[in-house]
Amino acid sequence: MDSERLKKQIDFIIEVDKLKTIYRRSYIADSSRKENDAEHSWHIALMAMILQEQSQNKDIDLLKVIKMLLIHDLVEIYAGDVIVYDLTQRHEQEQKEKAASKKLFSLLPEDQNKEYIALWTEFEENETDEARFARALDRLQPMLLNYATHGKTWQEAHIKSGDVLTVNKIINKGSEGLWNFARELVRDAVDKSFLEE
Amino acid sequence: MDSERLKKQIDFIIEVDKLKTIYRRSYIADSSRKENDAEHSWHIALMAMILQEQSQNKDIDLLKVIKMLLIHDLVEIYAGDVIVYDLTQRHEQEQKEKAASKKLFSLLPEDQNKEYIALWTEFEENETDEARFARALDRLQPMLLNYATHGKTWQEAHIKSGDVLTVNKIINKGSEGLWNFARELVRDAVDKSFLEE
Repeated sequence: MDSERLKKQIDFIIEVDKLKTIYRRSYIADSSRKENDAEHSWHIALMAMILQEQSQNKDIDLLKVIKMLLIHDLVEIYAGDVIVYDLTQRHEQEQKEKAASKKLFSLLPEDQNKEYIALWTEFEENETDEARFARALDRLQPMLLNYATHGKTWQEAHIKSGDVLTVNKIINKGSEGLWNFARELVRDAVDKSFLEE
Repeated sequence: MDSERLKKQIDFIIEVDKLKTIYRRSYIADSSRKENDAEHSWHIALMAMILQEQSQNKDIDLLKVIKMLLIHDLVEIYAGDVIVYDLTQRHEQEQKEKAASKKLFSLLPEDQNKEYIALWTEFEENETDEARFARALDRLQPMLLNYATHGKTWQEAHIKSGDVLTVNKIINKGSEGLWNFARELVRDAVDKSFLEE
């Protein structure tokens, strides 16, 4: 056993435990508290398993989608979380996250460092079928939680239905079916006064 | 789009959000609070990605390992969590979890219900290479957290080093390398007084 290699991997595994302390804007479905990035990452990886058939390309590499989803938020350990509706902050955030990805993944052995940077970059660039489907799930999940909590985060951040549709239309690139579902959810949320028109 | 099918899947996805409210005995690595099952499931799925080469059979189906890890604790939504060191409770728990698995996975469309029951049963039976490696990770992760928190849960539950080795030797079935690592970790934890001899 290459114990130097294993030591690096274990140190990385302990370091990323910090993802459990990065809190998001979304509340968990029972409204009791905000969700953290580790829980969110688990939830969307499970969604990928269940909703694979909704991908625009049904023959996607599901393992790659799940790998991307399990690691996509790790950069927030060093860069923090920013709400998707703040476009100015999001640009600065991209730079911070790129630096964070270099710092974090370099804890791993060199071959895995390269693999994880490549996976993270693929997710960010949103060009492959796998990245597009992964991104669609990453955007749909907070909408589901918002709906389940009767619009808690939408109301706290003064988000309107037009904002939700504009910011999340990227879902359509990964899954037309899920985008149709998301649009119905927004209409229904407006009808029920969870979300302002 | 089969909207009845998608509705079932989305309802399941919301129902399993409750995994975020099932707290374990382990503390997260910074000792600030206990870990929940959703975070734990994310952590061990990520460990499977990073440590695949440590599996006794290097040609395992990693996607299947990760699927098992993402769903293995879902039954605790209805059955609750039991510490691995309580052997009497663990037997009763098996019966409760079996009933819980039927109740929970039947929310999914029939084909997925069957698939998930099969995955969960495979993990529980611990006979295939995939299940054995998944189980090894599920047991190693709380040991890593215990070490990182200077033995917090071990001390609270009055666990001794012999108990840790007996209860977790199942790691050896999935990965000799990780079992050797785990034994070194226990020795080191005793030396540092994180764990009683």
